[in-house]
Amino acid sequence: MEFTVKQIATLLGGEVEGNDALTISKLAKIEEGRPGDISFLSNLKYEPHLYTTQASAVIVDRSFQPKKPVSAALIFVENSYSAFTRLLEEYHQRLNYARVGVEQPSYAGDGAQFGEQVYRGAFSYVGRNCHIGHNVKIYPHVYIGDNVRIGDNSIIHTGVRILSNCVIGHYCTIHPNAVIGSDGFGFAPQPDGTYKTIPQLGNVVLEDFVSIGANTTIDCATMGSTIIRQGVKLDNLIQIGHNVEIGRNTVIAAQTGVSGSTKIGENCIIAGQVGIVGHITIANNTSIGAQSGISKSIQEPGLKLSGSPAFDLKDNLRSTAIYRRLPDLERRLIEQEKKTNDTSDSR
Amino acid sequence: MEFTVKQIATLLGGEVEGNDALTISKLAKIEEGRPGDISFLSNLKYEPHLYTTQASAVIVDRSFQPKKPVSAALIFVENSYSAFTRLLEEYHQRLNYARVGVEQPSYAGDGAQFGEQVYRGAFSYVGRNCHIGHNVKIYPHVYIGDNVRIGDNSIIHTGVRILSNCVIGHYCTIHPNAVIGSDGFGFAPQPDGTYKTIPQLGNVVLEDFVSIGANTTIDCATMGSTIIRQGVKLDNLIQIGHNVEIGRNTVIAAQTGVSGSTKIGENCIIAGQVGIVGHITIANNTSIGAQSGISKSIQEPGLKLSGSPAFDLKDNLRSTAIYRRLPDLERRLIEQEKKTNDTSDSR
Amino acid sequence: MEFTVKQIATLLGGEVEGNDALTISKLAKIEEGRPGDISFLSNLKYEPHLYTTQASAVIVDRSFQPKKPVSAALIFVENSYSAFTRLLEEYHQRLNYARVGVEQPSYAGDGAQFGEQVYRGAFSYVGRNCHIGHNVKIYPHVYIGDNVRIGDNSIIHTGVRILSNCVIGHYCTIHPNAVIGSDGFGFAPQPDGTYKTIPQLGNVVLEDFVSIGANTTIDCATMGSTIIRQGVKLDNLIQIGHNVEIGRNTVIAAQTGVSGSTKIGENCIIAGQVGIVGHITIANNTSIGAQSGISKSIQEPGLKLSGSPAFDLKDNLRSTAIYRRLPDLERRLIEQEKKTNDTSDSR
Repeated sequence: MEFTVKQIATLLGGEVEGNDALTISKLAKIEEGRPGDISFLSNLKYEPHLYTTQASAVIVDRSFQPKKPVSAALIFVENSYSAFTRLLEEYHQRLNYARVGVEQPSYAGDGAQFGEQVYRGAFSYVGRNCHIGHNVKIYPHVYIGDNVRIGDNSIIHTGVRILSNCVIGHYCTIHPNAVIGSDGFGFAPQPDGTYKTIPQLGNVVLEDFVSIGANTTIDCATMGSTIIRQGVKLDNLIQIGHNVEIGRNTVIAAQTGVSGSTKIGENCIIAGQVGIVGHITIANNTSIGAQSGISKSIQEPGLKLSGSPAFDLKDNLRSTAIYRRLPDLERRLIEQEKKTNDTSDSR
Repeated sequence: MEFTVKQIATLLGGEVEGNDALTISKLAKIEEGRPGDISFLSNLKYEPHLYTTQASAVIVDRSFQPKKPVSAALIFVENSYSAFTRLLEEYHQRLNYARVGVEQPSYAGDGAQFGEQVYRGAFSYVGRNCHIGHNVKIYPHVYIGDNVRIGDNSIIHTGVRILSNCVIGHYCTIHPNAVIGSDGFGFAPQPDGTYKTIPQLGNVVLEDFVSIGANTTIDCATMGSTIIRQGVKLDNLIQIGHNVEIGRNTVIAAQTGVSGSTKIGENCIIAGQVGIVGHITIANNTSIGAQSGISKSIQEPGLKLSGSPAFDLKDNLRSTAIYRRLPDLERRLIEQEKKTNDTSDSR
Repeated sequence: MEFTVKQIATLLGGEVEGNDALTISKLAKIEEGRPGDISFLSNLKYEPHLYTTQASAVIVDRSFQPKKPVSAALIFVENSYSAFTRLLEEYHQRLNYARVGVEQPSYAGDGAQFGEQVYRGAFSYVGRNCHIGHNVKIYPHVYIGDNVRIGDNSIIHTGVRILSNCVIGHYCTIHPNAVIGSDGFGFAPQPDGTYKTIPQLGNVVLEDFVSIGANTTIDCATMGSTIIRQGVKLDNLIQIGHNVEIGRNTVIAAQTGVSGSTKIGENCIIAGQVGIVGHITIANNTSIGAQSGISKSIQEPGLKLSGSPAFDLKDNLRSTAIYRRLPDLERRLIEQEKKTNDTSDSR
């Protein structure tokens, strides 16, 4: 994607000093700027780079006055930092939605319906009776089973698997190789020591604005739905068991696992490598430290927990500190034992 | 898949009251039933839903007598709950094996042989000299390397990778994006600090009735075979190292890792996020709690262990309880130290 | 791949006794050798197998003199063990690089360039303006985004996803379903409790001789690069966050996670299921035990750490040992408390 300096200035509501016809194709730090790049100067500590940068354009504050000649075009705006951030977002957004049309070979089953501005990458597979909304981007090697619904503006990255009957909301992003809706881990022990598979017939529902990380797995419900509520963000390599429900705007970091039928509240923050057992409830606004193990329901909202099994974060820090000194603690106890023995003896 | 109420009644050995020509395509809870659904009534707590449900048919106990008019067709059977469960299994089974034939484009190397009733999805790849049994279902985007053997009735879900020379038994299910037979992690340190790759030339053998979860990885043996015995069930995101052997009917939950050359016995139950070091042996019927770390062989069968490093489950619970109270323990020790100092002083 | 006994002897600089025209296609242990196999005898404990093996050829030490007739051809070399190892490596190498050419259907975007001896498997996707070096092997179902560079002799296994703008060095191996360069986990909390996506515009750079395990995920940098230095070996199911840098020849075992912006030094050895927080630095030659949690920078090189949070390995072992005896420790403390109370009473 290429823009002229003038186009960018217009987007940002800024004024140009210099060549506004130059073409910009990339964003860069000011000290690393090359021809075709745009950068910004906010912290004046970096001002010396302004006079040497090879970037084609630099966004600066309206109040800024250069002390030497500048070869780059300057775009003057109210706040150069937030203008650059806005540019980043705009650029990212356009990049994400740039692809439109169907690359061949790709596969669509009978009755699959597609909205406008959809991208279907080569080797993508869309099953029967799927309903794919407007502006959905289906990257190469994506598999979508039968009867799947995907809302407008969702991005399904390469290698994602969405199994039959799942429902994906609007503005969702699913990162590469994530698996949505595979069978839950349900096996009934038999008298002879073998296990019988419990049929997993439900689906997964992602509401709107959900983000799912690369190689994360979300199992379908045994019956009904595994539900990921609006605005939830899941990192990479996370496991979500069957019939789990995750409340709005909860964020979970990489490699955490949530066992079957657990309900996690809204606006929780769960760090990486946490393990959560099945069939419990976690209150809203709970914060859980990395590598914690949650084995019981958390009723009170807003708690900060850590440890395995987890308890109050601060108390856990105290226990942790003493854990390191356990050999010292034992030594002191032995000393006490000697002393009281001496005392006993001396009596 | 659609059946008439009459067909379902015949399958379940039940009698119909009402319209037995209605078409059923889905199973549902009685309170959520819609036209085309079949449901069941076992617990009479739910009886009021029977008179309002929109489901086309409801399975009820032979002894049951409705107190009001029912719009749904009723199927009377000995035990409505187990009849419904049987229907679930039948439905799931048929769904799993419904697909037959070859979708295009798909790829098969020279000498690949396929049994009857095989499904090969679009974009599936089967290497040279593979031998694929009857009724095997190879979903879209599956990769099967050269010389792989897959037994009858196995289901290979979308995105699974089975590398060359691996052997898959009968009635196995491999869930999406699992990797079977990639290189083990073997590197020999060199004097200059670099590592030399140790060739990994073995394979993976799954015996019959094995289930492998989504995004799970099982490394091939350095030489010989990594072996997953009959009836083993592995959940999602599990790592199994090279030359590991897992005994019959052992069940392992998500995100557990087993390092190279370890042998796990039969009928073990291993929870999620467990880590097991390499080159050890774990006895039959061992039970290991979530997030445990196993660093030594377990010789005695039937132990229940937890913790990292793991020891007896109950003892670990006791230590865990005191761990929380370590600050209190230390405080009491300090008090003792004061007292004995006082005692010393007073002498 | 097939070779005659004579060809193998020439490769190893050995002399043949027996039929040097026999064809060899596989390597095997001497006790499991079958016609067409080659094996070796180094430890004389296994000598009896030499007289019964069905292998076509056996590599032996030059000094060795058989005591009975041998049906296999013998290849005499200086050191039979290292000769066999060399053969293993040669075999593995040839196997890895055997495939050449383009299987159809496969996809290449405008401006994609390919070196000589490249393999492009069926259903592989190479984006626009990619630059693929000589002898690179791109297996089926690989996705390579736009503007990706891959150095000579790198092997990209089936199902790998390399996102746009990433750079892969020479002699890298990326195992199945690994994801290189997907979005980092960056979300800015908003006043209403929702999160705004922070654009992730950087890339991932793998230097030369890097190995990445199956289903491992490496996030792209927010801006700039996530960098994996020369000779780094990552096992399966590892998570590497955005803007992480891993120093030369560092080795990381399966299921470990490294959070964003952390810098790991050279020649570190990090075991499995370790968690490392973001924005810290880990010194060269650090060794970290399995399931450890690293929450602070490690300044001093060469430390051996374990535990969560981690501290000195040996100290941790001591604390661990006492942890098991915490109930005993408490019991003894209670006894002391009784004694000093008695003492107090007796005063």
